[in-house]
Amino acid sequence: MKPIDFRSDTVTRPTAGMRRAMLDAEVGDDVYGEDPTVNRLEEQVAGRLGLEAAMFVPSGTQSNQIAMGLHCRPGDEVITEAGSHILQYEGGAVSALWGIQPQPLPSEDGLLSPEQVTAAVRPEGIHSPRSRLLSLENTHNRAGGTVWPLERFQAVVEAGRRAGLAIHLDGARLFNAEVATGTPASAWAKLTDTTSVCFSKGLGAPVGSALVGSAALIKEARRLRKRLGGGMRQAGILAAAALYALEHQVERLAEDHAHTRRLASGLAELPGVKVNLARVETNILLVEFARPSGEMVSRLAAQGLLVNATGPHTVRLVCHLDVSSADIDEALSRFRRTLKS
Amino acid sequence: MKPIDFRSDTVTRPTAGMRRAMLDAEVGDDVYGEDPTVNRLEEQVAGRLGLEAAMFVPSGTQSNQIAMGLHCRPGDEVITEAGSHILQYEGGAVSALWGIQPQPLPSEDGLLSPEQVTAAVRPEGIHSPRSRLLSLENTHNRAGGTVWPLERFQAVVEAGRRAGLAIHLDGARLFNAEVATGTPASAWAKLTDTTSVCFSKGLGAPVGSALVGSAALIKEARRLRKRLGGGMRQAGILAAAALYALEHQVERLAEDHAHTRRLASGLAELPGVKVNLARVETNILLVEFARPSGEMVSRLAAQGLLVNATGPHTVRLVCHLDVSSADIDEALSRFRRTLKS
Amino acid sequence: MKPIDFRSDTVTRPTAGMRRAMLDAEVGDDVYGEDPTVNRLEEQVAGRLGLEAAMFVPSGTQSNQIAMGLHCRPGDEVITEAGSHILQYEGGAVSALWGIQPQPLPSEDGLLSPEQVTAAVRPEGIHSPRSRLLSLENTHNRAGGTVWPLERFQAVVEAGRRAGLAIHLDGARLFNAEVATGTPASAWAKLTDTTSVCFSKGLGAPVGSALVGSAALIKEARRLRKRLGGGMRQAGILAAAALYALEHQVERLAEDHAHTRRLASGLAELPGVKVNLARVETNILLVEFARPSGEMVSRLAAQGLLVNATGPHTVRLVCHLDVSSADIDEALSRFRRTLKS
Amino acid sequence: MKPIDFRSDTVTRPTAGMRRAMLDAEVGDDVYGEDPTVNRLEEQVAGRLGLEAAMFVPSGTQSNQIAMGLHCRPGDEVITEAGSHILQYEGGAVSALWGIQPQPLPSEDGLLSPEQVTAAVRPEGIHSPRSRLLSLENTHNRAGGTVWPLERFQAVVEAGRRAGLAIHLDGARLFNAEVATGTPASAWAKLTDTTSVCFSKGLGAPVGSALVGSAALIKEARRLRKRLGGGMRQAGILAAAALYALEHQVERLAEDHAHTRRLASGLAELPGVKVNLARVETNILLVEFARPSGEMVSRLAAQGLLVNATGPHTVRLVCHLDVSSADIDEALSRFRRTLKS
Repeated sequence: MKPIDFRSDTVTRPTAGMRRAMLDAEVGDDVYGEDPTVNRLEEQVAGRLGLEAAMFVPSGTQSNQIAMGLHCRPGDEVITEAGSHILQYEGGAVSALWGIQPQPLPSEDGLLSPEQVTAAVRPEGIHSPRSRLLSLENTHNRAGGTVWPLERFQAVVEAGRRAGLAIHLDGARLFNAEVATGTPASAWAKLTDTTSVCFSKGLGAPVGSALVGSAALIKEARRLRKRLGGGMRQAGILAAAALYALEHQVERLAEDHAHTRRLASGLAELPGVKVNLARVETNILLVEFARPSGEMVSRLAAQGLLVNATGPHTVRLVCHLDVSSADIDEALSRFRRTLKS
Repeated sequence: MKPIDFRSDTVTRPTAGMRRAMLDAEVGDDVYGEDPTVNRLEEQVAGRLGLEAAMFVPSGTQSNQIAMGLHCRPGDEVITEAGSHILQYEGGAVSALWGIQPQPLPSEDGLLSPEQVTAAVRPEGIHSPRSRLLSLENTHNRAGGTVWPLERFQAVVEAGRRAGLAIHLDGARLFNAEVATGTPASAWAKLTDTTSVCFSKGLGAPVGSALVGSAALIKEARRLRKRLGGGMRQAGILAAAALYALEHQVERLAEDHAHTRRLASGLAELPGVKVNLARVETNILLVEFARPSGEMVSRLAAQGLLVNATGPHTVRLVCHLDVSSADIDEALSRFRRTLKS
Repeated sequence: MKPIDFRSDTVTRPTAGMRRAMLDAEVGDDVYGEDPTVNRLEEQVAGRLGLEAAMFVPSGTQSNQIAMGLHCRPGDEVITEAGSHILQYEGGAVSALWGIQPQPLPSEDGLLSPEQVTAAVRPEGIHSPRSRLLSLENTHNRAGGTVWPLERFQAVVEAGRRAGLAIHLDGARLFNAEVATGTPASAWAKLTDTTSVCFSKGLGAPVGSALVGSAALIKEARRLRKRLGGGMRQAGILAAAALYALEHQVERLAEDHAHTRRLASGLAELPGVKVNLARVETNILLVEFARPSGEMVSRLAAQGLLVNATGPHTVRLVCHLDVSSADIDEALSRFRRTLKS
Repeated sequence: MKPIDFRSDTVTRPTAGMRRAMLDAEVGDDVYGEDPTVNRLEEQVAGRLGLEAAMFVPSGTQSNQIAMGLHCRPGDEVITEAGSHILQYEGGAVSALWGIQPQPLPSEDGLLSPEQVTAAVRPEGIHSPRSRLLSLENTHNRAGGTVWPLERFQAVVEAGRRAGLAIHLDGARLFNAEVATGTPASAWAKLTDTTSVCFSKGLGAPVGSALVGSAALIKEARRLRKRLGGGMRQAGILAAAALYALEHQVERLAEDHAHTRRLASGLAELPGVKVNLARVETNILLVEFARPSGEMVSRLAAQGLLVNATGPHTVRLVCHLDVSSADIDEALSRFRRTLKS
């Protein structure tokens, strides 16, 4: 039985076309700024996001963390939603690397309100950390792939700006938001100081993210990338795959979204399963089982369904390039089998 | 009109007896471990808290922060109540000095439940910070001087221990808890790895706190104190005041508690004022005004009443050595006057 | 005029065979430990260096820095030669990321003596940083590609061990030492706790290094790699090139060494040029010009000779895969022309 | 036999007049900026050093370290003499607290040359730490209390300024330089951005140092002091002693200097002893013994002479308030006895 892997959209393998692009990539030493494919990717991403400059890095974590380091000094505070990737899945880097004390704000759906942001900002004084950065996530992974409506994003960004905060957007899945809404990715990104996008999630490239921002910030970012060991040499091999992904694999995210909705509807009808259909906006699906999630992960694995637990009873499913329409049908029947037994 | 200062119990001035003790103090170079008065204070505090050893430091912030540094490495996580002093009033030090990413847990009264602690502990893995330390606060300043019932404290500590966490107690006002309940301070402290106590709050000494713990931890703590610049030379001058406070000014905290209750009852009867009398346990009183706290701070100051705002409508009042019983009567009449106008 | 690039052995472009290996690489999600090519590379490197386990990372800087973080806590000290890569070319990471205060020791040739190490170790006490790690570099880049004689390495390592220090080897060019001496790389590596090797220098792979050590250390290293943003997804693409390099491009380093010697001898005969022929051991050549190095870099560039300045009058030349025997002849005649003019 | 304590000028005990000043000190809560004695001290020190503002802190280490944190961010570099206090005796704080990678420069006498500073400054680029701060020490402790000639200090400061470096002066014993040369302390201090002075060394106060600089820097310094736990409450007790020291115990440093010279001359005549008389400028004396310093420390202690070893054969002697002229005679005869046996 071939397993169907819903654990993450990071598991996708490069397509044949993408491999061919890597084979043919023209490369140079990117630490000297001489890799033409990396340079082309950086220009293209910056343009697409409506910001001045971009820098290619080996991971989304590094992209986000370099932004943290650009905006904050030790003793500063980042204000961010409690479940955000920078707090939950980056190994404590926000504090360990930069000495930032985060202020996590609660939410139902990964989105904040302007009032929350305004109330969170610390008054001047020596006792508190210094509020310095507002970090938002679109789509929001842990909340189930939720999309920031542009007006709400604007309002929250304005609340941050009024308080003098810098703005970072973790847009690891920003192209999912673009495809789901028809709003271009740049609409969100150009409101920010820095935006991070990832090529190795839904876009299907093997490795890499980009940090995008003003030319001055990205210049300084290269110093921080060096410090973290993210300076790669003939990185054009990887950049070629990212360029291929941007050209050929953005629009197809719509299929992943359709698959996710079909999966959600199918699961919603099964016993012992709760799905919030209104929250299924992109390629991530949170499913609540009556039974403990740890047990469900094992039982589903026995049926060739790979999923991750994200709460005591919650399991996350992610649709991506390597999950076909037929796989959705097959998955639903495996779910049915699992839940009956 | 003589101002009555309710801003904090840190504002107390040394009594005549305490000044005399400082004048007569035998001193030496404490960086060499040769100050007899510091040594006597450290022995006495350790004994009183039922732990092996103690170290004198210039502030409660330093005492708490050295504990953070003893228990955690960069990338580790401290689990603590959201309003705790280590997060709110120590200048971001928990992250800035030690690279710790805190996980703040919400509460009504500054106290946690064992279930909260158990649920907060991170699973093994490279993605999250590593849960390493549970830090509790007794009495809890920001929650209004609330006391940890010993059984609940035990249960929460056990939940932490089961998960392999070290335990720190911020006992800046632990002697207030002792006097309010009749439970000796050591009952809480000996359940912990490190406990911090402060001499310059309710106890009335001019300067200083102590960190208490095992001999091995306190030996290492001296290295961290040096690094933070907390090694003082003839510190016996200050230690003499702390010893005097321990001998003569612990039991009298009961007066502060009585004053606080009297103040609370009086205020509860005034219009536009909300006081949760059930939460008035020690020397701290949170008062909610109908009007904004910033405005109230100014209007009260005009009547010679000094208070601090701690929320949009909340003001904190603290009773201490330099607030007499007559001051409480006078304060209540000034409050009445202010609220009428 | 086709430029000849002596700036670094990092500038090499992947060979056709290597590109083919990347095209065909079997991949998976390495953050889940499921990339078979990465796994194969890690096993092979560990075996070749005589240590238990290895981890693939995007750069030599990251490999070294993760070792720093494994062995040291903030306030610890690394003892290392003053010109070592970890101090000169890693963006201040040793202190910025880990809070380590380095103690640089002077040398003529990049090598230390056991007596130097013993004398450098700090006595116990709270005043000094805590000596914790000895970091050595083989071959030594800034000293001109010098090789650590094995017996001297052993003696220095033993001096470190006697003082309780952990041992790290920056072996970015360790295979050059192997090929130059006939001593297997493992002879040095197995004396250490951690050794870093690089695939994108002389070996010619586009991207990547490995950190090698005990299974326990490498397990913990994965946590630090995540924190630095070095966790890559389908990294097998890059690992395939590294495997190819290990299989096909190690022995050929002998050619680079021969080229370097020939270049050295040729340059030694030119006017206004000083070369220490005794110090030409591998693929790096330091040349001292009578004229300022900045001026020489420009004048050589005008002749299609790319080199880096490393001192006021010193220029570094590095031979590698993309410099052929004919290039050496051509380079020498361009040098002659430049120095005549 | 009463011991004579030459270990450090930190061991002095407060005089009767100083104790009386502490007894009578008017105090307030300095964290609120309300301690009149602290405020008076800060004004007086700033004025005396010719800079705008000052801040009282518990130790010289904290004063220096706050300066490090004011001027540098993680990844920055401080250029300083290799034996400087900030590198040797502050527990690794420069890197542990602030992530600064120090560049130690060698010297014979603790003083640098402008050429050394100019050569040390790093070129722009992402590979090196960023040169940001030049830190000088006057008098220089580890070099034996040497004084910076003002013109040389100016030249070195100018070299730093040309390279865009901030300038810090560790003036823990700056008043010794003033008394030894007749040059006012302000002559050096006003060339710097920040200067640290200490009251608990030769000046004889029990506890405390001050950091002096522009009003803007000192405002920010209060934030860093809070973070390090150096905010003290009724610190006026200690400030009163410092004020007393400034008023009554500066000129008398001349006696310590005379004692030191007399001790030096006497020791220079003894067998197995080497003293560089030309280097005896203030109150610190380095003595080289033919026998190992560890052995000499014990043998001298047996004769009631307390000294510290600072090298394999070197011992440091410091004259201070609690070493009288008669003590020097007695010490010399004890030295004679020790060296004969």
